[in-house]
Formats: sequence, structure tokens, C-alpha cells
Amino acid sequence: MDRASPRSGVETLRWRDGRLEMIDQRVLPAEVVYRDYATAAGVAEGIRSMVVRGAPAIGCAAAYGVALDALRLAGAPRAQFDGAMQEAFAVLARSRPTAVNLFWALKRMRTVSGAMSPASSASIAERLLAEAHEILAEDIRINRAMGRNGAALLADGMTVLTHCNAGALATAGYGTALGVIRSAIESGKRISVIADETRPFLQGARLTAWELAQDAIPVTLITDNMAGHLMKCGEIQAVVVGTDRVAANGDVANKIGTYMVAVLAHRHAIPFYVACPISTIDPDMPNGDAIPIEERDANEVTGYRGVRWAPEGIKVRNPAFDVTPAELVTALITERGVVASPDQSNIAALLKSAPPVDSA
Amino acid sequence: MDRASPRSGVETLRWRDGRLEMIDQRVLPAEVVYRDYATAAGVAEGIRSMVVRGAPAIGCAAAYGVALDALRLAGAPRAQFDGAMQEAFAVLARSRPTAVNLFWALKRMRTVSGAMSPASSASIAERLLAEAHEILAEDIRINRAMGRNGAALLADGMTVLTHCNAGALATAGYGTALGVIRSAIESGKRISVIADETRPFLQGARLTAWELAQDAIPVTLITDNMAGHLMKCGEIQAVVVGTDRVAANGDVANKIGTYMVAVLAHRHAIPFYVACPISTIDPDMPNGDAIPIEERDANEVTGYRGVRWAPEGIKVRNPAFDVTPAELVTALITERGVVASPDQSNIAALLKSAPPVDSA
Repeated sequence: MDRASPRSGVETLRWRDGRLEMIDQRVLPAEVVYRDYATAAGVAEGIRSMVVRGAPAIGCAAAYGVALDALRLAGAPRAQFDGAMQEAFAVLARSRPTAVNLFWALKRMRTVSGAMSPASSASIAERLLAEAHEILAEDIRINRAMGRNGAALLADGMTVLTHCNAGALATAGYGTALGVIRSAIESGKRISVIADETRPFLQGARLTAWELAQDAIPVTLITDNMAGHLMKCGEIQAVVVGTDRVAANGDVANKIGTYMVAVLAHRHAIPFYVACPISTIDPDMPNGDAIPIEERDANEVTGYRGVRWAPEGIKVRNPAFDVTPAELVTALITERGVVASPDQSNIAALLKSAPPVDSA
Repeated sequence: MDRASPRSGVETLRWRDGRLEMIDQRVLPAEVVYRDYATAAGVAEGIRSMVVRGAPAIGCAAAYGVALDALRLAGAPRAQFDGAMQEAFAVLARSRPTAVNLFWALKRMRTVSGAMSPASSASIAERLLAEAHEILAEDIRINRAMGRNGAALLADGMTVLTHCNAGALATAGYGTALGVIRSAIESGKRISVIADETRPFLQGARLTAWELAQDAIPVTLITDNMAGHLMKCGEIQAVVVGTDRVAANGDVANKIGTYMVAVLAHRHAIPFYVACPISTIDPDMPNGDAIPIEERDANEVTGYRGVRWAPEGIKVRNPAFDVTPAELVTALITERGVVASPDQSNIAALLKSAPPVDSA
């Protein structure tokens, strides 16, 4: 049941010998370790504990999680199979609250299994695995289409700031925000990247800096609080970030700190682009105020891995995401094209438009 | 030659048995260790390596550094004494470039020794030590006066954001920004503090959180990139920070990330106050563009103490300070009063005004 997919850079997750393998993003770049998963509950824990992170990658992982339980229980009586599938969907849906791709992928898998309900458990399981493979392959095609669309926005010689990791490691491969940068470079432009380290989980320092260095793309690491100073000094010409969920009015949920970058970019008249697969747009969410913001464990803020630097006994806040209002977004970059000054009307039009030929 | 001084909270630096003792701020809060210094070169290294940091504390340390070499060489022939003193001033002036209090304190010590040039080395040395004691005692008086002036700006029930550490640990005691908060609380107001962790050196997580917890002042720790989100959610009512140098037009140099906080506060119409002893105003610096910004070692950004999280071989930027334009500063809080909407004219008027009776 293996299927090869065109990749760029690192493999974030892959299907091997009937199991899902995911690179452990908690220990990168010090260690490059793949962990393998045989159950939906295991994948859900991998999502929760951030072995895998990044909205599109979480969607792919969840799809494989469903397929894993379906394959495992394909020989069981039908009632037991159906019950187990309900439980698989439920455990995966509980893993993280903010990224909409998780729910989008689960809905897509549920639609597939629902459409096949008279079929045998084994046929359903095989079809679910095929759908997971398709979600992964499609993600890479979408990233490449987004990359082509966004590359036109970056000029030769630009230095581009990015926050968190919206790269190959956040997707099935190639990346959303970093896909735009990769595509601009593939088209012959010289682009340098400034990566915010992205406390508390350090996705910028650990993942973005690492995957760009792997591809020999020039990258400079800064702490999150340096971006404003560098913008003021004229050292940044554009911002490109990813997103975990875009509301119907264009408000953008993304990693904590994105809002701050958007406010600073606005002050300095620097374009602020959001690389956004269509699957990340949530038409049921009227605006960003309604997007649930995950609050994570205090330990992430009081230190890093074995090292604690904050005193004991203090309060901590740890919201994992924030919401950037649409008014601060110069454009959404999608696989169907670039939406400048996103709002309810042009996003609705985008969602109604047919997918272009080149993403098929 | 010891002299007791009224303190609040922790002792940042103190004179004991003919030596300068400084609490090692690099290892707080895990360890509370005093290191002792017997030479100007040793104190300069303590400043450079950030055993002591914070503009007013650096000024005090430098003054004691001068006194230490003067006392040590008080028995030497006069030519040797004078040469050694020149060297002491030079090594201390080279220790850190941004904080103006360092140069202010050295200038004051040089004026004292210059005025005594016909006297014996021993008398000069004794007079220099007395001056260092006076700089320390004066710093605490100034902080208390600033605290009283600034406390009126904070209302009962406010949550106040602060960045870096402008507390007892940044001064001879009591603090500048945290002195304002302490004073508001002493006057009976309920004030909560949100502390930015302040990467890369983590002064907020390690020092501000610790010294406020020592005084049982409610403190909540966040990463630097969370401030915008909390402001957007209405959870912050005022910002109070310290400063390392204020230009003649009111531009404020302070710890990297301060500019970002000021831009966010401005967007959310949250007052942005800078606690600023008069000695921190540099009338020779016409505006913030001319203030030298120290660039520190890459190791501070790529990890923390023994732990490295960034990949090898990438570029790093590490500016230690940034400049907030005067237009974003709601008011300077000084020991001589509050200067709203600081500019060249009201700062010049402030510098000409006589010190108030209560700071004597």
C-alpha cells in the first residue's frame, strides 16, 4: 500500500510497512528521529504532544490515524468496526483545538467511510488509506501551487521575515509560507530569510532555521522581540507566515506572536502575506473572535526541556495562537490565487471558484 | 568605610570589607550568589558579562570600580596612581556601550578626583569611595521619588505590563519601573504585573518574576510575543518600562523588544510610561538614531546556558537594545516629576529645573 510522493526537503510524515512514521519535531534539530504509530490514539497523542505540528501536517496525520484504526479492525465484526471508527474520529478531534485542517481532514475521511457504509470493513479500510495518501499528495500539490502564486509577490534581493514554521515540517512537504520562499528562489530570485525563534516551542529556531539550512537558503535567526527593531532599520522587506485557521471575514489565527508581527509590519508599510491553503479557511467561523485559542502547559514558558529559568510559584499564560485582523493582512496566498485585502466578499468568491487545472 | 543604605527587596550590589559584592544575575533565580570584586578590571568584566545589568546598577558598579582601584593604589607614587586611575576609567568605559549611566557615573567620579588633584592619593581614594556610596544612596532616593511620581499614573486594579527588569536588580534597590509599581502598591492600590520573559537573556522570567514574587506582588510570566494578544484581549491597562538612555528629543533606548511593546500599546491606546532617572537623559544625543546599539554574542540567541536548540552554521542577529521614538511615549516618569508627551522642549525644561526638596 506504499505510494511514493514528490517531496521537497525533509519528510514530515510517511507511510511505511503499514504504519505511520512521523519525524519527532520536539527533538529537532539535535536529533532526527522518526517515531512510528499503529493506532488513532497514538497519532492523537503525537499531535497533542507536538511530535507533529503545523496545520496541514496535523490534517495528514489525523487522516492516517483514522486509516490505521480502520486497517487494524478490518477483520472485526461490523458493529465493533463502526464503534471503533467513531472512537478513532473522537480521539483525534480532541487532540488540538485551533487548527481547522484537523477537522477538515476528519470530515473528509468520515464522508468517505459514510459513502461506503454498505461495503465490507476491509474495503472501507483500504479506501480510507487511499484517501489519506491522497490528502498527503494533494497537500504537496497545493503547496507547490501556492508557492508559484506567492513567488510573484517577492522581488529579487528581498529579505523576508517569517514566524514559527510554515515549512516542509508543517505540511506533507515543501511548505506553505516557506513554499512561497522556495518557489521564489527556484524561479531565480535571491531571497534571504529572517526567522523569529518563536517562543515558547521554538519552531523558528529549531525547525525553520534547520529546514532552510538543509536547503542552503540563507537564514538569520532572531528572538521574537527583535523583529520591530529590524523593520525600523529597514532590514525586512516582506513578511510571509502560515495560518491555522482563517475566518470567513479574513481574520487569521496563527502561532502566538503573529499578530505582533502584523502590527509592526503595518506600522512600517511592509507587506504582510499569509500562505493559506483553501482547506484552512473556515467558512463557518464568521470572524476571528470565535476561533478557539488553545492554552498550553505552563512548563513550556518557564523553561525549555530540562532547563527551568523562571522562579517557582508564579502564574504563567501560554496561549498557543493569536488572531490577526484581516485589515492587517496584505494578501492571502492560496492554491487558487492571491486574494489581496481579504474580506468576507472576496473570500466567499474564492471558495466558490473552481480549483485551477494545475492543482489537479 | 561601610555605610548602610535604606533598601527594598534584594541587594543588587553592596560594599563589604573593602570589596564590592554583586549578586550574580546570570544564575538567578536558580542560585542566589554574591561575587566579590577587588579591582576596576574585575568590575568591568562583571558588567560586560552581565553579572550586574540595568543602567542605574551599572552606574553604581562602575563608581565602585573606580574607588576599588583608587584604594588599592592609594599607597603608590602619585604618577603611578594617576596612570592607574586613567586605566581604571578606560576599562570601565569599554564594558558596555549603550547605558548612559555608566558614562555619567564615570564622569562624576572623574570630576571628584580632578577637583582633588593636589591632595594625597589616599585622600582622593577615600573621597572616591564616599562618592560611590553617595551615588548608590542617591539612586535609591531617586527611585523612591520616581516611584511616588509615577504611582499617581496607575489606578487601583490595573494590570501593568513590563519588559526586561527595571527593578531593584537593575538599580541600587527599589527599581525604576518596578519602583513605580511598588510605590503604587504601597499607596494601597491593587496592581498586578505581567512580565515579558525578555529573550535572549530572560531578565523578565529570571529577575522581574523573581523579585516581584519575593515581595509577594502578583506576577504573571509570558513570552515576549504574547503581549499583543493580551492587549487585544483587554488584559493590560498600562505599560511601564525602564530605559538605558533617553535622547534630548525624548527617544528612548531600552532592552530589545521595548519598541515592539510601545507600537502595540499605541495601537491599543494603552499608556506607555518610561521610568527615567534624570541621569539617564543624554542631552548630547540629539535623537535616538545616534544612540549606539550593542550587538551581543550569537550564543545568547541559539540557546540558553548549556542547552542549544538552533542548528549549527546559521547566521544570528543579537542587538541588545532598540529605540522607541518619543511619539510613542505617553510620559517619562522622573524624580523631578512626570513629563507627558516628551519632546526636546519639555526635556530641556526638565533638565534646567532645580531638584525637588524631597530627593535631597
